[in-house]
Amino acid sequence: MDNTPVIIGVDLGATFVRVGLFTQEGESLDFKIIQLDAERKVDTSVRRTIELIEKILKDNNSPHLLGIGTGSTGPVNPIDGTIISPYTDPAWQFVPYIQPLEDHFRVPCVLENDADAAALGEFWKGAGQNVSRLLAVTVGTGIGTALIVDGRIYQGMNGLHPEGGHHIVDPAGPECYCGVHGCWESLASGEALTAFSRQQAQNNPAWLRELGLDDVRFVDGASVSQAARQGNQLAMQIMQREAHYLSIGLINMMAVYVPERIVLSGGVMKSYDLLEATIQNTLKRSNPMIPASQVQIMPAKLGYFAGAIGAAFALKQATQI
Amino acid sequence: MDNTPVIIGVDLGATFVRVGLFTQEGESLDFKIIQLDAERKVDTSVRRTIELIEKILKDNNSPHLLGIGTGSTGPVNPIDGTIISPYTDPAWQFVPYIQPLEDHFRVPCVLENDADAAALGEFWKGAGQNVSRLLAVTVGTGIGTALIVDGRIYQGMNGLHPEGGHHIVDPAGPECYCGVHGCWESLASGEALTAFSRQQAQNNPAWLRELGLDDVRFVDGASVSQAARQGNQLAMQIMQREAHYLSIGLINMMAVYVPERIVLSGGVMKSYDLLEATIQNTLKRSNPMIPASQVQIMPAKLGYFAGAIGAAFALKQATQI
Repeated sequence: MDNTPVIIGVDLGATFVRVGLFTQEGESLDFKIIQLDAERKVDTSVRRTIELIEKILKDNNSPHLLGIGTGSTGPVNPIDGTIISPYTDPAWQFVPYIQPLEDHFRVPCVLENDADAAALGEFWKGAGQNVSRLLAVTVGTGIGTALIVDGRIYQGMNGLHPEGGHHIVDPAGPECYCGVHGCWESLASGEALTAFSRQQAQNNPAWLRELGLDDVRFVDGASVSQAARQGNQLAMQIMQREAHYLSIGLINMMAVYVPERIVLSGGVMKSYDLLEATIQNTLKRSNPMIPASQVQIMPAKLGYFAGAIGAAFALKQATQI
Repeated sequence: MDNTPVIIGVDLGATFVRVGLFTQEGESLDFKIIQLDAERKVDTSVRRTIELIEKILKDNNSPHLLGIGTGSTGPVNPIDGTIISPYTDPAWQFVPYIQPLEDHFRVPCVLENDADAAALGEFWKGAGQNVSRLLAVTVGTGIGTALIVDGRIYQGMNGLHPEGGHHIVDPAGPECYCGVHGCWESLASGEALTAFSRQQAQNNPAWLRELGLDDVRFVDGASVSQAARQGNQLAMQIMQREAHYLSIGLINMMAVYVPERIVLSGGVMKSYDLLEATIQNTLKRSNPMIPASQVQIMPAKLGYFAGAIGAAFALKQATQI
């Protein structure tokens, strides 16, 4: 056992739990990850998170734990420390999360939304350092947004997290599980890209063969991106469509938040090279009401570590250590 | 001359200057208004504002002036106190406003965007009192939005004011002077309502006669509202369209800001009785990601006085008096 003061940051995802051990200055000392069982249960996740924290502490000579920050998937209530409900799992309704952690470790614990935690991580140690109005946009399976104002997470009423991914960008778009037609996520997320591409392949078997695939179910954003890089016309058009809808949402984010910088992350951003020109051109043409040319758009830096780092920073902020 | 400490709030519009005299607690002592010349010049406006302040002070026994707050039309730079440029008047480019006022009156002066000032007025003395996340939406000639977070104006980078009215709600919509197609203002503002109604009248002379008008140029939001109230079918459809586009923008505002309350003002809101049912129904159906049912939507209270009252409050906040 030593007396080095440390903070734990947890990223509680739908499939993985990631735990990072940090100094107060945010230096990373260790990092562990486990995959949750396919049938994720509430008590299992909390218990396995506790076990993983125990392990990382033990492996690092049991340092002096100052507190634990967590960024969790699904809407959370940062005020009472409960996970409200990831939509995919009705068992997770108003799950107390902070209380069992505090009871076990006897240190201060905080809970934030995972998108907020990742944005905070980029602010502290990534692509958003010293940025007074930082917007983080994650374009993965869905689209998540998080706004950091002078280093603090912007929260709506009752601590609720904004859902920029579900603002409407085209009422003629497909229906989303969120209840509206044509929200940003329904048109520009990784899942939307895959769904639209499969639809094209369904209608156009020759194109499916051009992709080197023999089943529509193998078509996804990655295979279409690859084909676009090799000059496949329809694949390029699909990526243009993706860039178009991403741009509309980004224009809207600029109009409502007027951020100094937007950092982009998530699976779809692996194809940023195919999207960048259209996005930058569209933004330049649009909206003199706010100086789009002054808004910096760039990829996020921390990848999968952003959430745990940001969660540790949230704990640091909350406890002023 | 007496020693009553007072604050001045100025609402500098495109056509009118309104000046209010307030106690530190926001009690209104006097109110004056002048119309600016048709050919508004920078120096004229600043000079006439100064004259109007001189007059209201003199008429009230020259009380002890603590400071002057101003809410001005057009983008402003609240940090250096300049009016950047109302789009309609190219002469107003980076006009110093605070400096001449401070030089003249020798008291602290602050400058805010007029929509922000009006929202702050509603927070201090109107329909948004004690609301932690207050969004004010003005649907007049254009659409303006202002967010008040714990009693403070939300500003983007470099003090810039968000332009929620220019976020895109339907890319198939008309082109706006802001440079995009189908922004909220281009589809749901008073000017959009009038433009769409005139287009209908142009194509349908019988309907123009039903409105009791003999020239398309007399068609406007007010005449269409009146006809809708009397059961005119096309007029009712037009108001439904208005409510539809207002709803999309409001859903988006909820998604990105998660406000506790939205207060609505501006000319189009005189027809709120015709719009309310559709707006409330649309919001109820939409977006379980954020609890739309918990967001209170109501008309603003202070009308044309909101700007001056809020400007006085901005001064009070800035000087901590």
